[in-house]
Amino acid sequence: MRLSNLFTKTRREAPKDETATNAQLLIRAGFIHKDSAGVYVFLPLGLCVLNKIIAIIREEINALGGQELAMSSLQRKELWERTDRWDDEQVDVWFKTRYKNNTDVGLAWSHEEPLTELMREHISSYRDLPVYAYQFQTKLRNETRAKSGIMRTREFIMKDLYSFSRSEEEHKAFYKRAQDTYATIFDRLGLGEWTYLTFASGGAFAEFSHEFQTITDAGEDSIYVDHAKRIAINEEVYSDTLINDLGLTKDTLEKTKAAEVANIFNLGTSKSQPLGLVFTDEDGTQKPVVMGSYGIGPARVMGVVVERYADDRGMVWPEAIAPANVHIVQIGDAADTVRAAEKVYADLQKQGVEVLYDDRPDVTAGAKFADADLMGCPVRLTISQKTLEHNSVEIKKRTAAASKLAPIDDIKI
Amino acid sequence: MRLSNLFTKTRREAPKDETATNAQLLIRAGFIHKDSAGVYVFLPLGLCVLNKIIAIIREEINALGGQELAMSSLQRKELWERTDRWDDEQVDVWFKTRYKNNTDVGLAWSHEEPLTELMREHISSYRDLPVYAYQFQTKLRNETRAKSGIMRTREFIMKDLYSFSRSEEEHKAFYKRAQDTYATIFDRLGLGEWTYLTFASGGAFAEFSHEFQTITDAGEDSIYVDHAKRIAINEEVYSDTLINDLGLTKDTLEKTKAAEVANIFNLGTSKSQPLGLVFTDEDGTQKPVVMGSYGIGPARVMGVVVERYADDRGMVWPEAIAPANVHIVQIGDAADTVRAAEKVYADLQKQGVEVLYDDRPDVTAGAKFADADLMGCPVRLTISQKTLEHNSVEIKKRTAAASKLAPIDDIKI
Repeated sequence: MRLSNLFTKTRREAPKDETATNAQLLIRAGFIHKDSAGVYVFLPLGLCVLNKIIAIIREEINALGGQELAMSSLQRKELWERTDRWDDEQVDVWFKTRYKNNTDVGLAWSHEEPLTELMREHISSYRDLPVYAYQFQTKLRNETRAKSGIMRTREFIMKDLYSFSRSEEEHKAFYKRAQDTYATIFDRLGLGEWTYLTFASGGAFAEFSHEFQTITDAGEDSIYVDHAKRIAINEEVYSDTLINDLGLTKDTLEKTKAAEVANIFNLGTSKSQPLGLVFTDEDGTQKPVVMGSYGIGPARVMGVVVERYADDRGMVWPEAIAPANVHIVQIGDAADTVRAAEKVYADLQKQGVEVLYDDRPDVTAGAKFADADLMGCPVRLTISQKTLEHNSVEIKKRTAAASKLAPIDDIKI
Repeated sequence: MRLSNLFTKTRREAPKDETATNAQLLIRAGFIHKDSAGVYVFLPLGLCVLNKIIAIIREEINALGGQELAMSSLQRKELWERTDRWDDEQVDVWFKTRYKNNTDVGLAWSHEEPLTELMREHISSYRDLPVYAYQFQTKLRNETRAKSGIMRTREFIMKDLYSFSRSEEEHKAFYKRAQDTYATIFDRLGLGEWTYLTFASGGAFAEFSHEFQTITDAGEDSIYVDHAKRIAINEEVYSDTLINDLGLTKDTLEKTKAAEVANIFNLGTSKSQPLGLVFTDEDGTQKPVVMGSYGIGPARVMGVVVERYADDRGMVWPEAIAPANVHIVQIGDAADTVRAAEKVYADLQKQGVEVLYDDRPDVTAGAKFADADLMGCPVRLTISQKTLEHNSVEIKKRTAAASKLAPIDDIKI
């Protein structure tokens, strides 16, 4: 992608009402646009990063046996009444609207109830189980406050996976596999080092749920971490009993701020029973399906990556999710510089390397370097009259202080 | 994909309240689920088809110079008030809801106003133009009736492209290129033969808009077609003057039912003026940006393809958007049949062929054949004791009456 073509512009200042570092940097770099509090637009480079995060999650969830579908935002009131979750007293994040005939309709803040009901058409026998179904779908949540940039918004895409199992035992085995997959996902997304499996409150059915929490000052949660055992306890369930049950000790637990990047709920039969999702088991008896739900918010992950990696010059993307691997800075518009830069751009693309090419005329070298740092691609290649005198390009990693020259005909990224 | 793994089931009967052929077949085949009138869920095979349609559109729009972004469903009232389109009297398909502080918020039925406003941050000079920005994003429309299956729903993904040009002249040149791209897209999607560039009513700014209309009895529109000149007139603007202006004659125009699969609007400065999207031209004067909007509904396209191609046995997918190219039917569970079918399945996948493999035990040959016809993949491969006696597989095209045997070690699809 040529920056001269890209319609987005970088800016020096973030909007004054934006307090979160992740949104400030993403807005300044032209990756996102803030429409209003908690409502963001993903611009081309931001969408590119988001889609790379989604692709990694999709690959791992497919490997886990997940089958992808796409549900609706419009949801029927009566489904949610059956689990007593329609009332705003029970669920305080509903957006609701009305059809022309004045029927109430809910806007998806979760898809647990509709998917459970849908599965009644496809699950009737133990032979139909287990089923793992997931989607990347928009959630709308009427949050009172939205102040953490793209880490907590009123509208966001969530990857929600649901498991449907024959027994508690089958469910537990999958639950464990899903935990392992989540750990792999966060490793691939560049957050593995700071991300901990965390015990949290369990909701209606189970005593505990599991979260994946990434340590960051930008997080809204407080957790107690055992770094050696790579396990944590959310403040909300922190107790002597739990510490003991998990074989931990207070001495090795460190309290820290963290952001929830994923959660896993054991739903048991709390949905399948009221919604009538039952199956006939091998012995002929009818049983409710045992369910779990497994969520990851790709945009929140993106925000946490920005928070974890950014420095005072801008964003720093892990290679797997960077908008491009290489950012070419062409300095000056001399014919041979342009020719050399164009050739490097073409050659790298031929090799399958993704490149941002700053070919903008009338932009100073200083402004181009600042933009390259702000956008945060892993490698910067500078081509100027000076580097060409040495038949070279200057290579600088985003995370390195120093740069080096490399022969222009033999660039190794 | 193995049908024994796929969680969706086929069914003999569509829901009684579903009158549209496209939805009846898609539901019976387990491609979609009907949640309520005008609200559908895309199940794995349906999502696969939808994503293939989206991928083709994306490829062509990128080639046209489009840059992809993703806007929000939640929209600010004040933006729409500025163009006098907030009021339900003006726009009768709004879904509206409220934030907790009782502020009204609209749910996107279109993104013209928000995108126009967003562009103010990125367009200020003639040097920034032209810009072509697009998205695949959910539209929510409070339709009074929704009766054409997935061809008219209350919630759907739309590809909406917007052009931002410096002058009427620059705009017209792009408008023409976009028309050509749309023709290419419908060719690739298998609808080219029946799809006509159609003159329709123009909206607020221009006398006419352009639609792409596909001839089908399932369509909601009536158009007058000149087959030789491959041009049509929507009934709503059919007049002697227009017939004359287009160089057509009444004798060669045939009235027919058709479905609108795309539309193109010349917005002129009807959005940029009230929303303040202006630029400084080369001569120093400030001018409003000239805009166009270009929509395609991928799910509607999918519905129209079903309507156009289906026969009395089920759906018939064009190769480019079929859920898989080959549907293997394994008959019987004899060890050598299973071994042979598994090998063909593996070999085809190695060759990059997408395959549905009906490996379900306890399903009769008749039921498997019926499901293969219903699902509509282009090629069916049958492997049974009988074909193995000839060291062969039976190959049958979905559109052909006859089948033939082919050597199992040399299958040419």
